[in-house]
Amino acid sequence: MTDALLTVAYEGTCYRGFERQAKGEDTVRGRLEAVLAETLGRDVGIVAAGRTDAGVHAAAMPVLVPGPLALRPERLAHALNARLPKDIVVRAARAAPPGFQPRFDALGKTYVYNLWIEPSVPPFWRRYAWHRPRQLDLTLMEAAARALSGRHDFSAFGRTGRPTLDTVRDVRLRITRRGPLVTVWADGSGFLYKMVRALVGTVVEAGRGALSKEDVAAMVAGQRASGPTAPAHGLTLVEVRYAWGTVAGHDFIDLLPNDT
Amino acid sequence: MTDALLTVAYEGTCYRGFERQAKGEDTVRGRLEAVLAETLGRDVGIVAAGRTDAGVHAAAMPVLVPGPLALRPERLAHALNARLPKDIVVRAARAAPPGFQPRFDALGKTYVYNLWIEPSVPPFWRRYAWHRPRQLDLTLMEAAARALSGRHDFSAFGRTGRPTLDTVRDVRLRITRRGPLVTVWADGSGFLYKMVRALVGTVVEAGRGALSKEDVAAMVAGQRASGPTAPAHGLTLVEVRYAWGTVAGHDFIDLLPNDT
Repeated sequence: MTDALLTVAYEGTCYRGFERQAKGEDTVRGRLEAVLAETLGRDVGIVAAGRTDAGVHAAAMPVLVPGPLALRPERLAHALNARLPKDIVVRAARAAPPGFQPRFDALGKTYVYNLWIEPSVPPFWRRYAWHRPRQLDLTLMEAAARALSGRHDFSAFGRTGRPTLDTVRDVRLRITRRGPLVTVWADGSGFLYKMVRALVGTVVEAGRGALSKEDVAAMVAGQRASGPTAPAHGLTLVEVRYAWGTVAGHDFIDLLPNDT
Repeated sequence: MTDALLTVAYEGTCYRGFERQAKGEDTVRGRLEAVLAETLGRDVGIVAAGRTDAGVHAAAMPVLVPGPLALRPERLAHALNARLPKDIVVRAARAAPPGFQPRFDALGKTYVYNLWIEPSVPPFWRRYAWHRPRQLDLTLMEAAARALSGRHDFSAFGRTGRPTLDTVRDVRLRITRRGPLVTVWADGSGFLYKMVRALVGTVVEAGRGALSKEDVAAMVAGQRASGPTAPAHGLTLVEVRYAWGTVAGHDFIDLLPNDT
């Protein structure tokens, strides 16, 4: 077989992100490549659709494994899962479309950010939701989400020392609620470094009443820094869209009704 | 204040159950009593509605804290949560009804048992669902659930060295499904030791086609041993019913629609 396309899910809690920044760091890429080398008997450099920061989760990260491969995709997935730690799972495997480039071919991505708004957070949600003990005004959050949506220069939301030539992005934020679980859905053609978490931090500050409509407008106009960066553990990559189809794995979040 | 009634949620993964069996074991009771002693400045013996085995979770375990208490219930909950490990959480606190006995006053309890039926299990569910890689026949599972429901002598389902004088129980099993997540709901006036897990193990064996209708009937008639005990980590106590009201905390499972 030629190249394989894996859909990889991981709980980011114990990893220094997907991609290695410094030597010796425990990363999702490092774990995948180590297990691929064991399974295939040779070193393999994988290509993913993007990188996630330390502590961020993925329900569906597209990962290209360059061939030739002696195993068919389902067999490869099975062999990898038998060796991977339980917090990294190959959820699907298929032959990659010809010439597939997971990162450059991506047309859009969806992240979810979970907030648990109640005095205490159930143990089941503590790794996947940002606990906010005090009530937030959902109407104000939705107004901020609308103001932030669209095609804007998001330089105020890029937490970066890295220079980005183009900071214009097209994003859409939606908010759904089910009891104490409030989820911010971020769809976009692409995101700057830590941008989703800065958007969520801004939406939450708006929900506290600490940022006005005008403040948010000034951020979008690049005249003001964004709200604080929301913590990593609330964030999960759930979908990457390509011309030929979608790599998705909503897992726990898709099981929830999306009633606002 | 007199006695307090706490609703305690915990992830059982790291504990040897609720109740100490041997000295030095790390249990939920041990953690709660240690933190209560720190908070109240005296030793406190709590009374819970029941015990859960090693690895079993609770979304709502009723726990009585005998008074007199210097703190109001909400303050007590807040103080305990600040000191408890993150996998044990006081989700609610109130004044206990006069003369309340969490265990003996219980009229009924509900447990959920989660199965994840797909070749791989997402990392998010691995602690709360029993991973079954192969398809199970839901119709056969439902037939077994119906056959097991009702007022029967459940001696075939009690995994016990402990003598139980009365092994007659009245239980109702329901099955709901949402994609790969299949949930067995067990409602009953009471359960024998490891009974819910033996019921689920039996339902799963029926779903594999490994147990016939007649086999299940023979178990209910006490003429045959039950199916294997399902693993602890799929099981969660979600509700305890009393004459004056219900202590419930469905948390993650109540967020799911109950469509079969």
